Amino acid sequence: MTVETIRWKNNRVELIDQRLLPAKLKYAICVTDKDMWTAIRTLKVRGAPAIGVAGAYGVYLGVRESKAKVYKAFRREVDRIIEYLARSRPTARNLFWALERVLDVVEKNKDKKISVIKKIILREAHTILKEDKKTCRAIGRYGSVLIPRGSTVLTHCNAGGLATVDYGTALGVIFTARKKIKRVYVDETRPVLQGARLTAWELKKQGIPATLVCDNMAASLMADGEVDTIIVGADRIAANGDTANKIGTYGLAILASYHNIPFYVAAPVSTFDLSISNGREIPIEERDSLEVKKIGKEYITLKDMDVRNPAFDVTPAKLITAIITERGLIKSPCRKRIRDVVNRQDARGKK
Amino acid sequence: MTVETIRWKNNRVELIDQRLLPAKLKYAICVTDKDMWTAIRTLKVRGAPAIGVAGAYGVYLGVRESKAKVYKAFRREVDRIIEYLARSRPTARNLFWALERVLDVVEKNKDKKISVIKKIILREAHTILKEDKKTCRAIGRYGSVLIPRGSTVLTHCNAGGLATVDYGTALGVIFTARKKIKRVYVDETRPVLQGARLTAWELKKQGIPATLVCDNMAASLMADGEVDTIIVGADRIAANGDTANKIGTYGLAILASYHNIPFYVAAPVSTFDLSISNGREIPIEERDSLEVKKIGKEYITLKDMDVRNPAFDVTPAKLITAIITERGLIKSPCRKRIRDVVNRQDARGKK
Repeated sequence: MTVETIRWKNNRVELIDQRLLPAKLKYAICVTDKDMWTAIRTLKVRGAPAIGVAGAYGVYLGVRESKAKVYKAFRREVDRIIEYLARSRPTARNLFWALERVLDVVEKNKDKKISVIKKIILREAHTILKEDKKTCRAIGRYGSVLIPRGSTVLTHCNAGGLATVDYGTALGVIFTARKKIKRVYVDETRPVLQGARLTAWELKKQGIPATLVCDNMAASLMADGEVDTIIVGADRIAANGDTANKIGTYGLAILASYHNIPFYVAAPVSTFDLSISNGREIPIEERDSLEVKKIGKEYITLKDMDVRNPAFDVTPAKLITAIITERGLIKSPCRKRIRDVVNRQDARGKK
Repeated sequence: MTVETIRWKNNRVELIDQRLLPAKLKYAICVTDKDMWTAIRTLKVRGAPAIGVAGAYGVYLGVRESKAKVYKAFRREVDRIIEYLARSRPTARNLFWALERVLDVVEKNKDKKISVIKKIILREAHTILKEDKKTCRAIGRYGSVLIPRGSTVLTHCNAGGLATVDYGTALGVIFTARKKIKRVYVDETRPVLQGARLTAWELKKQGIPATLVCDNMAASLMADGEVDTIIVGADRIAANGDTANKIGTYGLAILASYHNIPFYVAAPVSTFDLSISNGREIPIEERDSLEVKKIGKEYITLKDMDVRNPAFDVTPAKLITAIITERGLIKSPCRKRIRDVVNRQDARGKK
């Protein structure tokens, strides 16, 4: 286990407050759905798979005190809470996927007693959490094959244990292939610095040689032949393979293509959104300008400066060498190959 | 006049301490060559043309108390001071160019009294300063022609009044073309944040609509069609047009090429180094890792994190649409066109 990002303990959710890392490792407590909404919105918990798990628990936190006596009334509450949690952040598919999964089990068990349905919701959240661990291990195994011996890998943002339940997607591949990896370059990932704060911390913890660079240094490293492979996570992948991920990913993919460096996206099947034809349809969250204007307590620019702060960008499928999923690799991703893998064996159906 | 970056006042050099902007506009005082060396090294003054001017004054500060009675002894001191100042920063050509210019006038006037040579050195520094103002105005005029009406311009780092004596190279073009410019996107330019701190401040002061973005957002803006033109400065340009400039420039140039956006470099002739065949020969300064690890007083990563911090990168000539100099445009820069413009009329020879 690399980190225990989210856990159910003493009848509440404990999650690492990622805003405090690497200076402090401290768990934030979520007792209500509002706590969870705030934890997601304010980035106490972040990373597409992690906020999926967090969202599922959030539904339980919202309904557990419900006084509803009949399914119809209970269902109205569930719908309201799911809608509420879905408004915490717009881009990561995994959040909606997890909320839909919870809604599914509620609907399937509508004939049961409300108290039983509540327990089923909690059990589903536990299941999503447990599956995430397995999923990351599988992504790690499939992705590891792509890493040449003695290579240097560059990653952006944090797609590690902190972005999932405990192992990571992009970092899951790096952890699995660690013996083959000479060094990992970590993009600091402005404005929230998930690379400098979180990925640096996870790699250090694992004893993997890691070097931090500013986002704008990646091109220069590539020109110098210092990057053999790039791996990133994903927040939402459209049916054609276009991938939304942390802002800066798209630029990296262009640089990778220019320098003939393979560019991999590591993501669970729950990140795919086959209802969306291509990347243009993915909603991109624009976050508070203060994330850019302040670092810690200090302003780094004029207080009244106009700022753009899109949290994600979209990398077209053609720039992605392969997508690494828990069901295998999708090389040169296209609609057909994606459909084949995503529909191959629905983990949910087989449960 | 946009800003008075460097001035000679009360028999000493006053320069805006750029580390304090935009929070404080405060002049640092340089009385000795050591003060000037430190000012350059610690980025109180930065920007290739500005450190050229600073270097020239630095020689005067170093020799003015000289007790040398004969030229030979005086010349040894001059050589030592020039060597010393040349060790302050390695990449910007303009520093060496200015120091060589001072050495030239010293050599040309070797038969004069030491006290007279000292005055000639100071006069040469004044001349370099005055020429820089004219040079920037000319760059502005030539570059302005390239800016389409109603366009948005992206710039990186600070090639403004603060990087020169008072008007700027890349920003000089923007100031001159201001009526045609809808908006300027300003890359924050990690790690030292010259964009967020200095360019933002200069544009705001001039009332030019400006929006700050993190370096890793540029690609996404380009994909959205929000960038019509990119203009940056330069620290050293090799004989073939390869250009060293602030780290991140090379990546931007690749992104510009990918999106078919013109990419311009604005720089005075003093930035060219015809003794260097191509960009591989340009020495790239690697600066202290603390510049990356700390912002203000706060660490943004693990204190013992390994870091790379190259201050510059090299953009190959083929990615540069044109170089804008005070002697005209060099479109699709190549050895011949560069030689033609640089040797066309040596401003020094004509003085």
